[in-house]
Amino acid sequence: MIVKHGMHYLTVLNSARNHKLAPPLAVLRRQQFLIRVLGGRGENRMQGSEFEADSDNILRAITPALDPNRHKGQAGKVAVIGGCREYTGAPYFAAISALKIGADLSHVFCTKDAAPVIKSYSPELIVHPVLEESYSVGDRDRDPISRRVVAEVDKWMERFDCLVVGPGLGRDPFLLDCVSEIMKQARQSNVPIIIDGDGLFLVTNNLGLVSGYPLAILTPNVNEYKRLVQKVLNCEVNDQDAHGQLLSLAKQIGGATILRKGKCDLISDGEIVKSVSNHGSPRRCGGQGDILSGSVAVFLSWARQLILADEGNLIISPKNPTMLGCIAGSALLRKAASLAFEDRKRSTLTTDIIECLGRSLEDICPAC
Amino acid sequence: MIVKHGMHYLTVLNSARNHKLAPPLAVLRRQQFLIRVLGGRGENRMQGSEFEADSDNILRAITPALDPNRHKGQAGKVAVIGGCREYTGAPYFAAISALKIGADLSHVFCTKDAAPVIKSYSPELIVHPVLEESYSVGDRDRDPISRRVVAEVDKWMERFDCLVVGPGLGRDPFLLDCVSEIMKQARQSNVPIIIDGDGLFLVTNNLGLVSGYPLAILTPNVNEYKRLVQKVLNCEVNDQDAHGQLLSLAKQIGGATILRKGKCDLISDGEIVKSVSNHGSPRRCGGQGDILSGSVAVFLSWARQLILADEGNLIISPKNPTMLGCIAGSALLRKAASLAFEDRKRSTLTTDIIECLGRSLEDICPAC
Repeated sequence: MIVKHGMHYLTVLNSARNHKLAPPLAVLRRQQFLIRVLGGRGENRMQGSEFEADSDNILRAITPALDPNRHKGQAGKVAVIGGCREYTGAPYFAAISALKIGADLSHVFCTKDAAPVIKSYSPELIVHPVLEESYSVGDRDRDPISRRVVAEVDKWMERFDCLVVGPGLGRDPFLLDCVSEIMKQARQSNVPIIIDGDGLFLVTNNLGLVSGYPLAILTPNVNEYKRLVQKVLNCEVNDQDAHGQLLSLAKQIGGATILRKGKCDLISDGEIVKSVSNHGSPRRCGGQGDILSGSVAVFLSWARQLILADEGNLIISPKNPTMLGCIAGSALLRKAASLAFEDRKRSTLTTDIIECLGRSLEDICPAC
Repeated sequence: MIVKHGMHYLTVLNSARNHKLAPPLAVLRRQQFLIRVLGGRGENRMQGSEFEADSDNILRAITPALDPNRHKGQAGKVAVIGGCREYTGAPYFAAISALKIGADLSHVFCTKDAAPVIKSYSPELIVHPVLEESYSVGDRDRDPISRRVVAEVDKWMERFDCLVVGPGLGRDPFLLDCVSEIMKQARQSNVPIIIDGDGLFLVTNNLGLVSGYPLAILTPNVNEYKRLVQKVLNCEVNDQDAHGQLLSLAKQIGGATILRKGKCDLISDGEIVKSVSNHGSPRRCGGQGDILSGSVAVFLSWARQLILADEGNLIISPKNPTMLGCIAGSALLRKAASLAFEDRKRSTLTTDIIECLGRSLEDICPAC
C-alpha cells in the first residue's frame, strides 16, 4: 500500500512532467515530502520489496486472542535492565511501552538514584532499585555487592518472558560488569534478551555475551551499527550491499538476530533478511528506540509462546520468534509514530508516540 | 498587517470621536486593549517598521525540512545549564521547549537536589546531576570538585549544537565560578551560548565571558537590560533612542547578540538592529523567558547548520545565525503566547504556552 502510494505520487510527478504542466510549488513540495517519507525513489522500493516482511499479518498472527480464562502474567512479563543517575526516561519508555501493547507485568531494574524518579513516571511499573554504580561502591565491596546485585535480579529471572538490556543503562564499568553477569544468568535460563543503547556498547566490547545465543536480539541505530560492523566484520558499513552485510554480521555473531534501525528497518538472524519500511514519522526525537525494544520484547514473547504451543504447525513465515518479534515491533512503532506525527507534527515527542501504541495495535489487530 | 490593524482601530476611535458617537464602554475597552496589545501608538509602530524583521519568512527559511533519511541528533542537540536547590521549573521550561520545537535531544545540567525533580517533570529530558552549590562543598574540596564539575559537562560539549546558560541557575558563588569555566570550554569548542536569567547576572559582572564571542546571545528583560547598560555603557536606559543604544551596547560587548525583551523585542549584533513586535500575550507569568531561550537555541542551531551547508548562498537577511535564531524564537514565542492567551486568558501559564508551540510552528511553517 505504501509502495502504491509512493508510486502514485511518482506517477503524478512524471505525468505532470510529460505533459509539461508544472504543478504549483506547494503541490510539488508536498509531493517531494511524501516521496521522501514513503521511502525515497520508487525504484529502490520496488527492488527491495522481495525482502519486505508481511508485517501486519505477522503482527496479527502472533498477537494472542484476549481470553477471560487466562490469568495475570500469561500475556507477558517483561523486565528492563536500565536506568542510572543520568538516564531515567529510556527505561520508563521501554517498560511502559511493553504494558501499553499488552504485557501483563513490566519490571525495571535500575540504580537507587533512578528508582524513585522512574516510579514517579508511572505507578504501573514495578521498579527495583538494585543496580549500583562505581561511585557508590568501595574497592573492597565490589565482589560482594556484585554478587548481591546479580542475585537480586536472578531470583526473578525464571518469571520473565523477556529481558530488555540497555535503555538508559549508562556506561559505568562496575554496573556493566554486573549486567554482563545478569545476561549470562538470563542465557542459562533461556530467557530471550533484547539489547539496545548502552547494552550494545557492552556487547560490542564483549561479543561472547550473545554469540551463539539464538534468543538474543540486537537493535543498533546508525552509529551503533557502524561500531558493530567495524568490530565484528572488521570493515566499514556497506550500504550498497546492506542486506548481504547484515546477513554476514548476524551469521558471524552466531545466530543472534540483528534489527538495524533506519529509514527502513532491516532484520536478520543470519539465515534470512527481512525489511520493514511501513510509513513512520520523520521526527527523530530521542526515545523511539526504547519504545521499539519494549515492543519487540512483548511480540517476541508472544511469538515464542505461539511457536511452542503450535509445535511447528505455524503457517506464518519466518518461523524464528526473534525475527517475528522484530518485524511486529518495528511495524507497530512505525504505525504509532505515524499517527502521533499526524497529530503533533514537529512537536511529536516519544510520550505522544506511546499514547498511540494502543490505537495502532487496534487498527492492525482489533481486540475483538 | 499588525500596523494595519493598529491603524484601523485608531481610525475607528478617531472616527467615533469626530462624529461624537461614543461607542459603548465594552467596545472602547476592547479597542484600547487591542491597541495596547498591537504595539502602542500607531505612529511609533510606523516609525519602527523599517526595523521590523520578516520573522515568519525567516522562521520558515531556517526550519529544516523533515527527512526520513536523517537520524537522531541531526535536528539538534541542546543543553541547558541551570536548576538548583531553589529553581527547577526554569530549566525544564527551556529544555522541553527545545524538544517541542523539533530538537532531537535536550539535556539539563543541574545540581543534585534539582535533578530528581526536573527528571520527574518529563521522561523526555536527559538530566545530569553534576553542579554543586557552596553549602555542599568544603573549602579544601573546592578545586577538585570544580574540576570534576567542569569535566563532567565538557565530556559532552562536542555533541551539543547550543548551550543555554542561566534558567534557574541561582547565584551561588561556587556554582557560578564553575559555570564561568563551562562557558569558557563552550567558547573554545565554538558552541553557541544563549545567556538568560542568572546567567546574565554572571555575565554582567564578568563581561569577558562573552566579549568578542559572536556565538553568544544575551536575552535580558527590562531589569537585566538596565544593569547591562549601566555596567557596559555607564549610563541609564534611553528609550528615545532604544535602537541606537542597543546597537552601541552590542558593539561594545564585541559582537555578542542582544535580544532586549519587551513589548516589542529588539535584537542587535552590533551591526544591525531588528525588532519583532508580532501579536503576543499581555500575560507576564514567569517562565516565558525560559521558553524563549530554549526556542532561540533550536533556531540558532538550525540557522547555523543552514548557513554552513549553503556556504553563503543563503538568500535571507540578516545573515548572522544568532540574529536569525533570536528573530525566529521571538516570533514563535509570541505566536504561542497569543494562542494560549486566546484559550486561557488571565489564567494562562507557561505550560499552556509550551503546549501551543507545536501548533504555532505548524501554523507558520507546516511540517508537510
